[in-house]
Amino acid sequence: MPRPTITQVAALAGVSIASASRALNDQIASAETIEKVRKAAAELGYIPDSRARSLKLGRTQQLAYAVADIGNPVYVEMMSAVQHVVAASGYRLVISSTGTTSTSLEVVDELRRGHVDGLILSPLRVTDELIQALELAPVPVVVLGRAPEESTIDSVRADSPRGMRMVVDHLVATGRRRLVFLNGPRDTTPGRLREEGFLAAMAAHPDAEGRTFAAPDFTIASGYAAAQKVLDDADDAPLDAIVAANDLIGIGALHAADDLGWSVPGDLSITGMDNTELAEVTRPGLTSVDLGAAERGRLAAELLLARIAEPTRAVHTVTVAPSLTIRASSMAKPLAQATAERGVG
Amino acid sequence: MPRPTITQVAALAGVSIASASRALNDQIASAETIEKVRKAAAELGYIPDSRARSLKLGRTQQLAYAVADIGNPVYVEMMSAVQHVVAASGYRLVISSTGTTSTSLEVVDELRRGHVDGLILSPLRVTDELIQALELAPVPVVVLGRAPEESTIDSVRADSPRGMRMVVDHLVATGRRRLVFLNGPRDTTPGRLREEGFLAAMAAHPDAEGRTFAAPDFTIASGYAAAQKVLDDADDAPLDAIVAANDLIGIGALHAADDLGWSVPGDLSITGMDNTELAEVTRPGLTSVDLGAAERGRLAAELLLARIAEPTRAVHTVTVAPSLTIRASSMAKPLAQATAERGVG
Repeated sequence: MPRPTITQVAALAGVSIASASRALNDQIASAETIEKVRKAAAELGYIPDSRARSLKLGRTQQLAYAVADIGNPVYVEMMSAVQHVVAASGYRLVISSTGTTSTSLEVVDELRRGHVDGLILSPLRVTDELIQALELAPVPVVVLGRAPEESTIDSVRADSPRGMRMVVDHLVATGRRRLVFLNGPRDTTPGRLREEGFLAAMAAHPDAEGRTFAAPDFTIASGYAAAQKVLDDADDAPLDAIVAANDLIGIGALHAADDLGWSVPGDLSITGMDNTELAEVTRPGLTSVDLGAAERGRLAAELLLARIAEPTRAVHTVTVAPSLTIRASSMAKPLAQATAERGVG
Repeated sequence: MPRPTITQVAALAGVSIASASRALNDQIASAETIEKVRKAAAELGYIPDSRARSLKLGRTQQLAYAVADIGNPVYVEMMSAVQHVVAASGYRLVISSTGTTSTSLEVVDELRRGHVDGLILSPLRVTDELIQALELAPVPVVVLGRAPEESTIDSVRADSPRGMRMVVDHLVATGRRRLVFLNGPRDTTPGRLREEGFLAAMAAHPDAEGRTFAAPDFTIASGYAAAQKVLDDADDAPLDAIVAANDLIGIGALHAADDLGWSVPGDLSITGMDNTELAEVTRPGLTSVDLGAAERGRLAAELLLARIAEPTRAVHTVTVAPSLTIRASSMAKPLAQATAERGVG
């Protein structure tokens, strides 16, 4: 079937081509004309050509979402939420994957091609150079992460230090006194922020002891090996809780504890962070902190649409509060029993 | 910074605007001119406007990927693979989520807006109406799923019946004789195909018995309740293996067996399907069939690019072979012991 043209729509509606176009694309016409033209367009199955239209309007009706790795479950959760808001507003979502070694600068460069009206970027590293590029970008950008205080970029951030505080408070409240933080690499943003958060949280509990140990990776295998080491050394350096920097390390620790004959949570509490689907399927289930990935995605999309609608509005920096899901891996043991066994308190 | 124009590029290169445009956009010019114009464009930071360019070329350099639920891990795996191929070919990927109740017809309608050069569609249900719409679509479409034999649509399909055969053969080879298939809803494409596959596979083993049981959903909770029922009835209807229709049902069965005191794989083997990340984190690990989601995504993207390059090429229907990953949940028990215990063989 040949595609119907605006000329045919105009002829059927009995108006000029210019009127038909204005009525359809810009809603600038009398109510009666708009109604006539819409009816004719519907009858013929006419759909405006989005390329011609976007060129004329100077808008593409597309937004981009760029992340390091589109297969990472945390980014997927964000993307689903972004897509939901974007689609409901009549925009299309273009995905790019920056790769884990990228500075994200190419994504910002690409914006000059004019293929989108805005960008949501979740950079692995927020450098000064990147922020400067974003401030000069030809379309609005929202950063999922930590933009500097003085920048003019809208941003949405998680609060992993506060999440870490919730975990530590929970463990201490359930009778744990000797906590080991199992981190991934410390030279990553999550590694640095989560370890700082752990140490700050421990400082609030002078009756408990905290130490840290870094695994080479945020993976199950890395967590397994690190936990094995920590548990093997337990005679010299006793512990009653492992605070993992993410769920994968926590799952590795659960498996290591099982293999070495430690009862969880009888002898040892174990917690994770990110509250991925994986935390629900282990036995015992893994206590974990939800950093609100879906909520962050939703807010980022809403900030971007608001910025497009009103380019001069005030800069927004939004922080999403974490929440703790307590599962069997850190259920309370009676305090008296813990004290008697470990001789601390 | 005002955006540099093609006029400035042409002036700096010392060629006409038409030559500069041909050299940059179509590579139609002498090698020397192309080199001069490229250098001038690089110096000025000129990037062609993609909207103007796509209108002129009649191409958008965009492809769409449409699935029911972009958060589903199987679709995410496909999407990562699609994105990888698409990005490497200089295209952008536009994502749409059709929702789980949709007929996907709106996605096909949307193609008439001219925003993409092709579509990869993973429909939940492949209806005659949908195939007809796809055959009339204004741009090429590749279906991730089962297109009818006589259709002119390129398609990439999984082979879950063969996957089911691999599971059943493995269980029988490791001494299991009484198999229960725990399905999700039978009125879905996976539910129907996987159950047919199970029954066909059992028919090849007259010395073993198979029966089926449908859970109301493909979820952990549904699998847990269904397995509980089946295991509670084991005195009247003995079993030594549960073949779950997907990993989530399999994980529910693992948890139910644990709670009811069944040893896995001592008393009972349990298997899943889809080989998601979840199958690796359970204890015991869940034996599962990989239906090649990433490979299917990769092939679909390649078929689409090939079709765009050569619209008249022969229709391709590609089937990706499954593979079985054996984990602890179905490790072999000695055949003699199995026979003695169960009195079958």
